[in-house]
Amino acid sequence: MNYRMIAFYVAHITVIEALVMLPPLGIAAAQNDWTVFWAFGITIGLLVVLSLLLFLLRPRIKAIFAREGFVVTTLSWVLISLFGALPFYISGAIPNYIDCFFETVSGFTTTGASILKDVEIMPDALLYWRSFTHWLGGMGVLVFLLAIMPAERGAGASLHLLRAESPGPDVGKLLPKIRQGAMFLYLTYIALSVINLTLLLIGGMPLLDSLCTMFGTAGTGGFSVKNDGLTSYSPYLQNVVTIFMALFGVNFSIFYLLFTRQFSKALHDQELRAYIAILLISSAAIAVNIFPYYTDKGEAVRDAAFQVSSIMTTTGFATTDFNLWPEFSRTILMLLMIIGASAGSTGGGIKVSRLLILLKSIRKELNRMLHAREVRVIHFNDKPLDSPVVKGVNVFLGAYFLIAGASILLISIDNMSTTTNLTAVLSCIGNIGPGLDQVGPMSNYSGFSNFSKLVLSADMLLGRLEIFPILLLFSPSTWQHRPNIHLSMVAEQFDDN
Amino acid sequence: MNYRMIAFYVAHITVIEALVMLPPLGIAAAQNDWTVFWAFGITIGLLVVLSLLLFLLRPRIKAIFAREGFVVTTLSWVLISLFGALPFYISGAIPNYIDCFFETVSGFTTTGASILKDVEIMPDALLYWRSFTHWLGGMGVLVFLLAIMPAERGAGASLHLLRAESPGPDVGKLLPKIRQGAMFLYLTYIALSVINLTLLLIGGMPLLDSLCTMFGTAGTGGFSVKNDGLTSYSPYLQNVVTIFMALFGVNFSIFYLLFTRQFSKALHDQELRAYIAILLISSAAIAVNIFPYYTDKGEAVRDAAFQVSSIMTTTGFATTDFNLWPEFSRTILMLLMIIGASAGSTGGGIKVSRLLILLKSIRKELNRMLHAREVRVIHFNDKPLDSPVVKGVNVFLGAYFLIAGASILLISIDNMSTTTNLTAVLSCIGNIGPGLDQVGPMSNYSGFSNFSKLVLSADMLLGRLEIFPILLLFSPSTWQHRPNIHLSMVAEQFDDN
Repeated sequence: MNYRMIAFYVAHITVIEALVMLPPLGIAAAQNDWTVFWAFGITIGLLVVLSLLLFLLRPRIKAIFAREGFVVTTLSWVLISLFGALPFYISGAIPNYIDCFFETVSGFTTTGASILKDVEIMPDALLYWRSFTHWLGGMGVLVFLLAIMPAERGAGASLHLLRAESPGPDVGKLLPKIRQGAMFLYLTYIALSVINLTLLLIGGMPLLDSLCTMFGTAGTGGFSVKNDGLTSYSPYLQNVVTIFMALFGVNFSIFYLLFTRQFSKALHDQELRAYIAILLISSAAIAVNIFPYYTDKGEAVRDAAFQVSSIMTTTGFATTDFNLWPEFSRTILMLLMIIGASAGSTGGGIKVSRLLILLKSIRKELNRMLHAREVRVIHFNDKPLDSPVVKGVNVFLGAYFLIAGASILLISIDNMSTTTNLTAVLSCIGNIGPGLDQVGPMSNYSGFSNFSKLVLSADMLLGRLEIFPILLLFSPSTWQHRPNIHLSMVAEQFDDN
Repeated sequence: MNYRMIAFYVAHITVIEALVMLPPLGIAAAQNDWTVFWAFGITIGLLVVLSLLLFLLRPRIKAIFAREGFVVTTLSWVLISLFGALPFYISGAIPNYIDCFFETVSGFTTTGASILKDVEIMPDALLYWRSFTHWLGGMGVLVFLLAIMPAERGAGASLHLLRAESPGPDVGKLLPKIRQGAMFLYLTYIALSVINLTLLLIGGMPLLDSLCTMFGTAGTGGFSVKNDGLTSYSPYLQNVVTIFMALFGVNFSIFYLLFTRQFSKALHDQELRAYIAILLISSAAIAVNIFPYYTDKGEAVRDAAFQVSSIMTTTGFATTDFNLWPEFSRTILMLLMIIGASAGSTGGGIKVSRLLILLKSIRKELNRMLHAREVRVIHFNDKPLDSPVVKGVNVFLGAYFLIAGASILLISIDNMSTTTNLTAVLSCIGNIGPGLDQVGPMSNYSGFSNFSKLVLSADMLLGRLEIFPILLLFSPSTWQHRPNIHLSMVAEQFDDN
């Protein structure tokens, strides 16, 4: 294990976190809120000291392998959450540190589950920071690092880091060079964010609200600055959010295809088609189901589309208390929580492409049972999928449900309702935010014990990093001593890029 | 598709069903209950006529392939359920035919979910028949056929039928010859059943109660003859049932190993060890959790062990209303519903061995991510598992959750609670019986609509036949026309045995 190289990468991440804490520091200063100013100031100071200490361990060997990639990723995410929680804690805005940690993990993982009973009393700088964690976590802080790092430094590491952090199994495959890929991802992300922000401002939403809503939408996070979510905003604003949540749930490779004028390839993407189909069918089914409760039928359609878009993209904004909807609509939302958005988007869940691969695996298994000697290969978008990818997807699904089951058991000690526990876990591991019953869209997670909050925090991280990077930390072979790193292996590693 | 051969096998099954309806016919006659007598008489008559018609289609080619095996299995199960429901319907004991069908499917699949609000008013002959379906369905009616069929007839078909019907992926592998295997299974089954019955009679349970309780225990079914389940029986009787439920949840290969004095191999079986560990740990955890609610702590332990044994083996008997237990205990039971019993037992669920294979797959996947070029093979009981088996298990798990999700959505239209829908589906697909909330152990399934009852009936059949045989019926390639069956293929088929 190349510990020095791990320290080197982590130091970059802590520097980035210190930098992105400057805007909220500025907001606090501008509003003469010195408690909050010093909370950010101290945190930035600690981050800088830590970074300097880590940079002292200059790495002698630059190559990193898969295991270092996974360690860097998991460690970075835990560290930025631990430090990101400090401003809430030091300022006294959230008195319990576990709560601060939960809220920050929820932010960075773009879950949007909150323990705050009253959001509106929070200082602006903290609200900004809380929502900004969504934006940074959405595309990934390591992807950001790769995008800005000089190519020769990042070369060996890029692939492993990108693999470990970026949402979905196939990012980077479409893009010829990793670094350019990371840059394209971030530029698209920024461009869409700016358009989204502009449209919100045009609709008359105040600047802080617009910024925070945009952060939540782009990162598919879901923290809002009002206690009733987005209920009180105009239909225009709600529709803008509906559309942009859906856009940020699209695989970013599609935007690359569109950008490079490969329109036909983009439109024939199997995941995109399935994603749009599920969005439309679910919205229609819910709209019909809730019609009797609405006098304004247009409002029913708007609410249905908003909630479907919000849950499926794992954003978690709400314009109505869908906890009160009939069971059929609630069940659709619960299933959408599990499915989630597209691979290679900022959304969470198991991803539409994994669902498609599962369906294809089932078809293949049926064929295998009928014609034992025939070997069929699973195709995705007309390309054959190699068997490790398919197997990896199936194992991932198994691990997903196993972790969900174990978490539901652990938090059941708090004696909340079955629906609460089930949807809280599905919501956290899927990085969605709200669930049903006691964690419904108009409620929050403050009712859980500290222990359960830690379990749910772990679920959020497991969901965001797609399980395996974190599980690997607990695998003994990750920590096995490998005394000799041959130069040939280093070279091989660089070849990957 | 060799339709004549399919008809030939199905005819045997309908004859068997006519034969096993003779005892309840006798009970009805002995009790001068002529309504019920004629209900059975007419059904037997219809079965005989159908069998004769099917036997007229004498098959010219005796060989059957995998697809015929699956069709025979699924068709047999649907037919015996359709006819098995007739005595309830014709006698007027259950006025709605969908209810009769649900109850019979629930019987044959050893689920034990009931639509009856008052069991105790049912005539004895119908109670006997209702519970006997558990006993026959537990080990499998086709396995029974293979056990009694002359060897030369069954040869080509045995493997495929056994594969399609017997519970678990590995039955028959340990046993050298299929027919002897089927016979050993049934003889063990009968021997254990007789011991179980004897112990119940010794404990003072009335004959009909003892028979029905034994049928339900052996088949891991769960229909009981009292409205409050087994609550009113003595602690001795409850403990006998606890132990025998656990025994019938053991892989029957273990009994074969014990019978052939391979004790060490039996005791080192990984599934057996995991199965016992889960039983003990769950019982202990629940006992501790429910202690505060009991003055008699011994009763708490007894209730915990009984309910755990009942749910994990997917029997579904109850000695207390565990729906009122704290959420932690309820959650353990819910997870046990999913896990189920051992492969090669009469129990349902996804099976302990599949869970173990999933855990091993996850470990392998983690290793693959660290050392991409290393190929590791998954071992089970020190034997390497070939990759199709592992892949099959993972795909099975995916299909299991997919079907569960779809079913929960379909029955949510009835607007029952989330917990009700979730546990009803898990209970039916796992062949357990009771769930939580409105389908708790002291409630029943009568509240669901006819549509939902059909969905849940399909779930029970899918669960009992382990999904794929039924899904194959909907696969176009099952029905593709294959004009030429070469003699070489027929010979090859016979070689399988």
